[in-house]
Amino acid sequence: MKTETVNDEKKTIKMKNYLQHISLDCVVFGFHSNQLKVLLLRMKNTGTWALPGGFVCEDESIEVAANRVLKERTGLDEIFLHQFNVFSDPQRSKHNPAVSDLILSGQTYPEKSWFDKRFISVGFYALVEFSQVEPQPDAFSDICEWINLENIGNLMLDHNHILQKALETLRMQLTFQPIGYNLLPEKFTLSELRKLYETILGKELDRRNFQRKILAYDILTRLEEVRLGVAHKAPVLYKFNLENYKRALDEGLQGRW
Amino acid sequence: MKTETVNDEKKTIKMKNYLQHISLDCVVFGFHSNQLKVLLLRMKNTGTWALPGGFVCEDESIEVAANRVLKERTGLDEIFLHQFNVFSDPQRSKHNPAVSDLILSGQTYPEKSWFDKRFISVGFYALVEFSQVEPQPDAFSDICEWINLENIGNLMLDHNHILQKALETLRMQLTFQPIGYNLLPEKFTLSELRKLYETILGKELDRRNFQRKILAYDILTRLEEVRLGVAHKAPVLYKFNLENYKRALDEGLQGRW
Repeated sequence: MKTETVNDEKKTIKMKNYLQHISLDCVVFGFHSNQLKVLLLRMKNTGTWALPGGFVCEDESIEVAANRVLKERTGLDEIFLHQFNVFSDPQRSKHNPAVSDLILSGQTYPEKSWFDKRFISVGFYALVEFSQVEPQPDAFSDICEWINLENIGNLMLDHNHILQKALETLRMQLTFQPIGYNLLPEKFTLSELRKLYETILGKELDRRNFQRKILAYDILTRLEEVRLGVAHKAPVLYKFNLENYKRALDEGLQGRW
Repeated sequence: MKTETVNDEKKTIKMKNYLQHISLDCVVFGFHSNQLKVLLLRMKNTGTWALPGGFVCEDESIEVAANRVLKERTGLDEIFLHQFNVFSDPQRSKHNPAVSDLILSGQTYPEKSWFDKRFISVGFYALVEFSQVEPQPDAFSDICEWINLENIGNLMLDHNHILQKALETLRMQLTFQPIGYNLLPEKFTLSELRKLYETILGKELDRRNFQRKILAYDILTRLEEVRLGVAHKAPVLYKFNLENYKRALDEGLQGRW
């Protein structure tokens, strides 16, 4: 463990008591205007984009560390984070450029070697309400912002791989758990819900099949209201049946065996 | 990283180049005679039972390390391991007795402090064919054997918690992925398959509901054979349709959205 301070023109980060070799990276998905966005940071020295991440203090569990990091980046207190995979390729921290170059270049920093160690990173993903987030860069970055999934280029280290794996996990999760609460407004049409699924899956879904399947899971309540102000026949509004929704989160969409 | 050797009456383990702070623990489930068993080790010095586990060498990914550990404990080369959770409670390594007491008591070992460090442990679980395993204790244990799930008492450190979490993950997996290949004989009856599910879930299932649900997933091929030598009407045999089984592993039992 190291007790160090990185001085930065804007902020001071205490590098105290971080566990060696261990980091965490967060893939934060946001949904807005039928687009899936990911929260990214632009590193000051190289302009490289990266996932928000951090290290684990001596007295923190990795979940506490991840929530601390995300609170700093988003302002949100209670993000529902899923730990989804550990990234431990021995070469992952040795990609070109090395982490120490990315985050410390141009600075004289006695603990460069700390960043050059091999790091095993625990990946988390979260789905958040786009509008509630106030993105904040960290000491090593100058921009923190939402980037549309389809516009994301080369990321730092193995962060493209981490993002891809998070997306695969989220897509698999769609097959057995409900999604949408906190991402959609309280009342929504089936077509709006389908667009959320289509955006996450990256493909179009058959309208009728989707409707039949999603209604069969019994997680929606049909309201006696319609969406006004649309061009065609006004579509019926739904909201989630939270009791059933939560049960489906626990037991799976199929229910227990 | 440490380069050390633990001398033991039976074996020599080279403690070289392990990453500090990081360990792995494996929950290996085996199915036999309608019972779910877990592979456990009995520690030499204290008689405490523990999950098989180990550390990560400098040049290993955590998956390679887990496969190495399990090959040593089971003789099996290609165990399908699922990484399921990271256990990182800061107090988890400080349970009474400390790891160093458990595995080193009675020995003068200069690197006791290495074992007394806080370890973040990556949990893996596996389902293996019971009959193929030849359990082998490690240098710190005198027994490695299958224990029936319902007979497992207090385990070392937080290993009961790790086991419980693995079981919950396996039960959730049953709701969206097929299971049974490599655990059942090639040909089996629906009742034998149901017993596997009942064993994992720890509860009885309704025969007809199970039959209806499992057949609807289209992962089974009905054979033109029956199980002979049983008391009642000879039941029809099935085998897995491996193409559909593998697709259901990838896409979920519901199929894609």
